[in-house]
Amino acid sequence: MATLPVSPLAPAQFPDLPQIGGVRFATAAAGVKYQNRTDVMLAVMDPGTSIAGVFTRSATRSAPVLDCQAKLGGDPEPGAAILVNSGNSNAFTGHYGQTSVSEITRTVAYVTGLPQERVFTASTGVIGEPLPHERITAKIEELNGTLAPDAIEAAAEAIMTTDTFAKGAEATVEIGGKTVSIAGIAKGSGMIAPDMATMLVYIFTDAHYEQDALQALLSGLNEQTFNCITVDSDTSTSDSLMVAATGAAGVDATDNESFQRALWYVMRQLSHQVVRDGEGATKFVEIQITGAASNADAKVHGMAIANSPLVKTAIAGEDPNWGRVVMAIGKSGAAADRDLLSISFGDVLVAEKGWVAPTYKEEDGAAEMKKQDITLKVDLGLGDGASTVWTCDLTHQYITINADYRS
Amino acid sequence: MATLPVSPLAPAQFPDLPQIGGVRFATAAAGVKYQNRTDVMLAVMDPGTSIAGVFTRSATRSAPVLDCQAKLGGDPEPGAAILVNSGNSNAFTGHYGQTSVSEITRTVAYVTGLPQERVFTASTGVIGEPLPHERITAKIEELNGTLAPDAIEAAAEAIMTTDTFAKGAEATVEIGGKTVSIAGIAKGSGMIAPDMATMLVYIFTDAHYEQDALQALLSGLNEQTFNCITVDSDTSTSDSLMVAATGAAGVDATDNESFQRALWYVMRQLSHQVVRDGEGATKFVEIQITGAASNADAKVHGMAIANSPLVKTAIAGEDPNWGRVVMAIGKSGAAADRDLLSISFGDVLVAEKGWVAPTYKEEDGAAEMKKQDITLKVDLGLGDGASTVWTCDLTHQYITINADYRS
Repeated sequence: MATLPVSPLAPAQFPDLPQIGGVRFATAAAGVKYQNRTDVMLAVMDPGTSIAGVFTRSATRSAPVLDCQAKLGGDPEPGAAILVNSGNSNAFTGHYGQTSVSEITRTVAYVTGLPQERVFTASTGVIGEPLPHERITAKIEELNGTLAPDAIEAAAEAIMTTDTFAKGAEATVEIGGKTVSIAGIAKGSGMIAPDMATMLVYIFTDAHYEQDALQALLSGLNEQTFNCITVDSDTSTSDSLMVAATGAAGVDATDNESFQRALWYVMRQLSHQVVRDGEGATKFVEIQITGAASNADAKVHGMAIANSPLVKTAIAGEDPNWGRVVMAIGKSGAAADRDLLSISFGDVLVAEKGWVAPTYKEEDGAAEMKKQDITLKVDLGLGDGASTVWTCDLTHQYITINADYRS
Repeated sequence: MATLPVSPLAPAQFPDLPQIGGVRFATAAAGVKYQNRTDVMLAVMDPGTSIAGVFTRSATRSAPVLDCQAKLGGDPEPGAAILVNSGNSNAFTGHYGQTSVSEITRTVAYVTGLPQERVFTASTGVIGEPLPHERITAKIEELNGTLAPDAIEAAAEAIMTTDTFAKGAEATVEIGGKTVSIAGIAKGSGMIAPDMATMLVYIFTDAHYEQDALQALLSGLNEQTFNCITVDSDTSTSDSLMVAATGAAGVDATDNESFQRALWYVMRQLSHQVVRDGEGATKFVEIQITGAASNADAKVHGMAIANSPLVKTAIAGEDPNWGRVVMAIGKSGAAADRDLLSISFGDVLVAEKGWVAPTYKEEDGAAEMKKQDITLKVDLGLGDGASTVWTCDLTHQYITINADYRS
């Protein structure tokens, strides 16, 4: 695998994540595919940990995803474990894929003493090749013997594939005089032929949060964070996002609004980091849609703009090409009236009432486009519907990563 | 405007199109935007000519498109005219756009003696700038004075924007011992910032075809031809396809199946030429979907594959990356069962029953991908639904055309 340069949009450094009581991490170099690096991470959570998850909607999703989905909602009492490997996605591997999942979850259950129904896995990397699960199961004893509460950054590194930086985010909240912490890690969305972009996200908190309520909260926040980002409109067969609430802080955060906001913040930070590591990205783009007929319509418009190759190449070229934004709105399928539209790049009003704004100067638009972080605002002039989505530009480097490299 | 090299997928030469009785063409250099080339074409059709049209579904469609749509279904008796300019699309030009259309159609009507309701226009080129329609209206007398039955190739050239070759196709049919001819021209889908890909297609026949039936026929054939192609998933605000049936051959072809097949053939040829001129295209790709739950599902799968940046970059890299095809099927939203899928590149069976085919050799797949015209076959294993769509690859040159050039 070629080593890619670190994204110009990367944060300066991995954040200082708080230790989360009730969860311990370990990593190992199993040699699934990569050599001379860690490629397996194990997280083990204490008894009583609530687990929630959301997963890819792909109709061809991988064996680990199907296994996780089947296990959601199980009894939190005995605790839980999450094992993730990089290098092989165990996707499109026929009936063999389920065998690999069973072998791994059975071994983790045996070694940790957890029931197999509380062992969740994910795999990311090459597709269509059988997962050499024996290389992973051979490492479970070692992993279990080296679990430590402060190894979350190592875990973030072990799950990277073609990511150019490790991703982490954190928040703390005071509830009833006690501090609860949230720490999350993510990988995505580098890809390399014939691998696929897979987004994996794991978030841990020492708050207690009732499991069914946690699942509902996660599903709702996911719609406002990870489901509002796009790099290239393609959907992995393995995307997974899980939250574990251990309760070690002795605080019940169920339905607490401060906690919900903190979890939203961590999810938003991680989702933005995924965009900032989009293949070939040189611009981080926030698209704010207002005035749509509904919130759903606003999101349809936002994603149509965010996924348009013509919009994304214009941004790469630092071209304030509002005509392509109009085009994307027109094709989205959601309600729009050409003559009520207004479009701004940053605070520069570019177009209104179906035409160029009389105050608009091309050099003002061009100056906005030279920024690394760009905000694109569209008001439909129809109603109160609003949505914000995030994407990156489409550059030569995207083509290089996805066409020029060969497996 | 930079001159682009002719697409490697271009036909060897413009075809020898038959003269169509009852229609005459003229072109002129009006200097709308381009200098030293023709940029306006006028076609005038004899009394009794049926006119049918299909147009972009964009919610932000241009003033000429809205005007044409309002005029469809009018009385064929007096004849008809089509005027097309390149260089300016008259799209997103506010109320000024409708004024330009009115000025042009009124002048054409005055000079030709046709009613204004039978004068159709289209504009293609830069968006959001007022159309200098006075440059066009100043040329109508000259155009009308130079109409000729054999000027269709010149017409094809006048409507080009960033096309790298002029596009034409023809067919002849024997009906009741008489020969009827069909000749068509098209432009698309080159684009250059801040222009947009616009597809304009004009097809002429000397057959008579009852106007309402012609409209129904065109709408149906469009679903199997132009609505089955995609270069980059973006939709112009100006796409227009019109058919004129003059009746000069003295043959009523209404509901004649041979004629319908011939019209389908001309439309398919032109639609393929548009793909072959896709920005940066180096591969022409036919995607055949079979075994889907319905024809509609088959088309959804086909377009999901055809629009996937990961599939398109893999094809550009000559990589037989069937995993990305599985990914695109999974994300399409139409029914699929991972373990019933089979995928072939050309005649090479790559994957079946949810895994690599036991007979598959990577070098066989790689050899298929080296061809200039590639066929990708997917069988869903679910039912009898089938659809075929066409696209091209996604290359560095696409980024160069759409990001690196500035207006």
